[in-house]
Amino acid sequence: MSKLNILVTNDDGMVAPGLAALVEVASDFGEVLVVAPNSPQSGQGHAITIENPLRLNKVNVFKDIPAYECNGTPADCVKMAKHLLRKNQQIDLCLSGINHGSNASVNIIYSGTMSAAMEAAIEGINSIGFSLLDYNFNADFSTAKHVVRSLLEKITTHGFHKECNLLNVNIPRVNIDEFKGFKICRQANGYWKEEFLTSKDPRNQEYYWLTGEFVNRDTGTDTDLYALTNHYASIVPSHYDLTHYPSLDFYKILE
Amino acid sequence: MSKLNILVTNDDGMVAPGLAALVEVASDFGEVLVVAPNSPQSGQGHAITIENPLRLNKVNVFKDIPAYECNGTPADCVKMAKHLLRKNQQIDLCLSGINHGSNASVNIIYSGTMSAAMEAAIEGINSIGFSLLDYNFNADFSTAKHVVRSLLEKITTHGFHKECNLLNVNIPRVNIDEFKGFKICRQANGYWKEEFLTSKDPRNQEYYWLTGEFVNRDTGTDTDLYALTNHYASIVPSHYDLTHYPSLDFYKILE
Repeated sequence: MSKLNILVTNDDGMVAPGLAALVEVASDFGEVLVVAPNSPQSGQGHAITIENPLRLNKVNVFKDIPAYECNGTPADCVKMAKHLLRKNQQIDLCLSGINHGSNASVNIIYSGTMSAAMEAAIEGINSIGFSLLDYNFNADFSTAKHVVRSLLEKITTHGFHKECNLLNVNIPRVNIDEFKGFKICRQANGYWKEEFLTSKDPRNQEYYWLTGEFVNRDTGTDTDLYALTNHYASIVPSHYDLTHYPSLDFYKILE
Repeated sequence: MSKLNILVTNDDGMVAPGLAALVEVASDFGEVLVVAPNSPQSGQGHAITIENPLRLNKVNVFKDIPAYECNGTPADCVKMAKHLLRKNQQIDLCLSGINHGSNASVNIIYSGTMSAAMEAAIEGINSIGFSLLDYNFNADFSTAKHVVRSLLEKITTHGFHKECNLLNVNIPRVNIDEFKGFKICRQANGYWKEEFLTSKDPRNQEYYWLTGEFVNRDTGTDTDLYALTNHYASIVPSHYDLTHYPSLDFYKILE
């Protein structure tokens, strides 16, 4: 097998330990190019930068592996890799992460990690986003690295579905001997039950800070949240066609 | 029928003419609350603000209609309306727009307008995003206002599907006598063929600016792009479950 050209990106920024973990594993599967944000971009969703100029800065973080910091969003990083740095060379695979936190359930919508992976998918590049269910910056990535390696071995053998080139992979926070394997899942129906903490700044102006807790309102056993609770890594085949097909007929009444 | 409590928001900011057009029509259907960004937020996707404090500023832009500027993203505006300003009162309907530009096809992914509408949908609020296919800040919104009014009359009569509370409505740039009516559509499969303009700043540092053209790679006649080309307003029933169900069985091989 010829070596894959692999783009690695994330939303936690160039110095995040999760990025280093992903680069380490990815480099055993191909030639890696890293393009990552120069600041944390969690919660950036599928934002792109159109009102401001973008910049790229080559950095020496991963020894022999070329790495560029970008001042934009995760989706911008992918666009710059594809249309600037690799303009004349195919990218075979995009890996995004390993995110610190959860991209399971509705979190995929808010996730910079998954929007980078999705941007690559829209461009026709097979793409996987990884997230470890541990918000700690210094999380233990040893199980996660095992999971990534195992999945890359499988997917490079079996390939992607021709109509679905995007996988959302979440990894439970467990030791390797507790890890149960992979489950193909649907996205659980959950939401954030939110509130705003209110405070006053030194000029006596009110400000608000978003806080909240995640609620799973889905009782299914075929969901990503269910798999993760049971120590499986969840894989949700995902796409960017947001059409709700089952209601198309119902809404014909509006024509 | 008792009056609806309607939240109106957008991504072009409080002073955008498209917002004024939407507020004007919406106020004939219920009690309107406006919460909009204090600066343009196009391309913000489903970004939320978690690293910085949020602020709300009551403004007097729409006479008797309460309006608040927010320093966050469109999705933040909806969260602040729901969990702060209307914490103890139900919001019956969220209307987002009228966006200046297109949210058809894959543009829904990048759209701040649609992310606001989707945020409301996740919260269980029936929600519609509107976009007029005219990027001009001083676009003529007369056809668009007619379209919004006509759709609100229909939807308040027929109601939303119980499993799909989010509609993505795009309006063609035509005079009212050329407007053909509504089409229920699926999201067309298109993408942005992009490039980066390269230039140098006064300190001789390179910078890049995203540019590109939209490509429709979908030949279907049941898509939003097809409807718009034929002078229909497109309605795509949309959702936030990104699972690609047809490939779930295929990917079981990874388990």
